[in-house]
Amino acid sequence: MARFMDVHHGMRGITEDQLRQAHDADLAIQQEEGVDFRQAWADPESGTVYCLSEAPSADAVQRIHERTGHKADEIHEVPLAV
Amino acid sequence: MARFMDVHHGMRGITEDQLRQAHDADLAIQQEEGVDFRQAWADPESGTVYCLSEAPSADAVQRIHERTGHKADEIHEVPLAV
Repeated sequence: MARFMDVHHGMRGITEDQLRQAHDADLAIQQEEGVDFRQAWADPESGTVYCLSEAPSADAVQRIHERTGHKADEIHEVPLAV
Repeated sequence: MARFMDVHHGMRGITEDQLRQAHDADLAIQQEEGVDFRQAWADPESGTVYCLSEAPSADAVQRIHERTGHKADEIHEVPLAV
């Protein structure tokens, strides 16, 4: 499976609970697209959220994020990791 | 310690070896600034590289990256993680 980093902008002031709820909403339906959201990090000051996942495609990642109401602004396949 | 995600743009075509060398160069001197680079991911197509670290400050992260020749284009503190 491919590895992706997707980026959300515009989430200024996001709280730990909101991040947890958004992540849990993705986890609840991810298997319907064969996606595995591994981790998410958030910067409440700039409103930037990064999500690391493994998935069949970037579109599959976006379909899950759309259904849970937080579409990604960027999705990058990141085949290289150290 | 604070947690940071820094982002490099303009690394189109980066190879696994180049990513490994850049990361190893950071690891070799990181303790001089109390930085701990945990992981890095790269998208050779868009030239985007993400580095996750724990550090005393964003400046400390940038000082290490500058000394190893690959200054970050963005550095976000990411206090929230799931």
